[in-house]
Amino acid sequence: MIELMLIGIGTGNPEHLTLQAIAALKRAELILIPRKGADKTELAELRRQVCATHLDGRARLVEFDLPVRDAAAPRYLDGVQAWHAAIAAVWAEQIATCLPEGGRVALLVWGDPSLYDSSLRIAERLQAAGMALRVEVIPGLSSVQLLTAAHAIPLNTLGASVLITTGRQLRAGGWPAGLDTVVVLLDGGCAFEVLPPEGIDIYWAAYLGMPQQLLLAGPLASTGPRIAALRAAAREEQGWIMDSYLLRSSAVAPGGLR
Amino acid sequence: MIELMLIGIGTGNPEHLTLQAIAALKRAELILIPRKGADKTELAELRRQVCATHLDGRARLVEFDLPVRDAAAPRYLDGVQAWHAAIAAVWAEQIATCLPEGGRVALLVWGDPSLYDSSLRIAERLQAAGMALRVEVIPGLSSVQLLTAAHAIPLNTLGASVLITTGRQLRAGGWPAGLDTVVVLLDGGCAFEVLPPEGIDIYWAAYLGMPQQLLLAGPLASTGPRIAALRAAAREEQGWIMDSYLLRSSAVAPGGLR
Repeated sequence: MIELMLIGIGTGNPEHLTLQAIAALKRAELILIPRKGADKTELAELRRQVCATHLDGRARLVEFDLPVRDAAAPRYLDGVQAWHAAIAAVWAEQIATCLPEGGRVALLVWGDPSLYDSSLRIAERLQAAGMALRVEVIPGLSSVQLLTAAHAIPLNTLGASVLITTGRQLRAGGWPAGLDTVVVLLDGGCAFEVLPPEGIDIYWAAYLGMPQQLLLAGPLASTGPRIAALRAAAREEQGWIMDSYLLRSSAVAPGGLR
Repeated sequence: MIELMLIGIGTGNPEHLTLQAIAALKRAELILIPRKGADKTELAELRRQVCATHLDGRARLVEFDLPVRDAAAPRYLDGVQAWHAAIAAVWAEQIATCLPEGGRVALLVWGDPSLYDSSLRIAERLQAAGMALRVEVIPGLSSVQLLTAAHAIPLNTLGASVLITTGRQLRAGGWPAGLDTVVVLLDGGCAFEVLPPEGIDIYWAAYLGMPQQLLLAGPLASTGPRIAALRAAAREEQGWIMDSYLLRSSAVAPGGLR
């Protein structure tokens, strides 16, 4: 029997770890650390640093090259499914090699394992393929919380709903009817540019929790172009970027309809 | 100058605290602990326990009686606004009494300070009334994450959006068009009963993270009535209840429209 612990570690600051996450890490016999290509070595480095700070050397740390998603796949979701299958194969291989008798394996998941993360779906593939796998999720701070905390703003307006969505969905669907707050994650570009900016404020952040954290906020009409320029420059300089933003519309009555 | 730290503490398990939250607590000179009436003493007790575990006695702990919201107010939002004004007055009084020369005051906020919590709005009232107040938010695990972690499920389906809403909004608006996932918080009853249950699964939890945590999940048609019964019994037994749930509809295509 394999016990898989998916441990949320927040988004870049080792102080984001919860006491529960540290305790779970200490219980692990094997910790798998994905390597995501040269431009994101910083993320693997953070995981190594978390392990070095909190572990006593009993757990075995194993790094593996994360398969790359085929961004040229004709249908986006097909590309994602094939990618998950490839990752599941690598996990299965590492677990079989390192824990042939079973045991406790941990993965340090960026942010929270429940939100736009594939770990739970990959674990399900292993179960479907017949692996005796028990999954435990240890939640971590997500970029949604870190974004609102960095700007010291509430996520929702009084008694109102909030939509959490992706850049892809925002481009396809535009502003959701009846809502005043939208949080956008996984945006490879500046999907906010598709919106008529009147009456919308944007609260943007990149590299949340990391030393190079960037924040910009203001009316979308004037702040959107500044974000686009800053984003391009930061991506060029760092070699990668991870950003998110909250959009708030004043065009919906407080406590809005839905 | 007053520095106000709003520290998210998760939802009932002292191990939900992040390292960042513990460090912030240690910096506080004054910690305000709200008392919410006899039926929720457990929540004040948890805050006391967190302080007792992580503080060295330097900070001053002051308890205050939280004003009660007038649930009979003719308009819900008016009742909430009056309640916030009353809380702001109590905060201002405590801060003036305990930190006449200024300093750092902390409030331990259940869950995360950004999500359906009034602390940021109350702080804004103090600023608007002329208090020199700097606000820092230290994020905490929210019941959204703890709910999905407890059930070991993803929050979103692949690439799709998620609506976070209240029982009140769900009752008023029903199922939101084009979405497959809805998380419901602040439901004083069983708002899911307004939905035609076909094709919907529910993942419910009460007292998340606490020793008496309850979980139920399954098709809404058969699980909804079980939740209603368990909820009523638990509320009767404990004297209070705090619960939340995720609804997932299979009637929307994966990666859904919006």
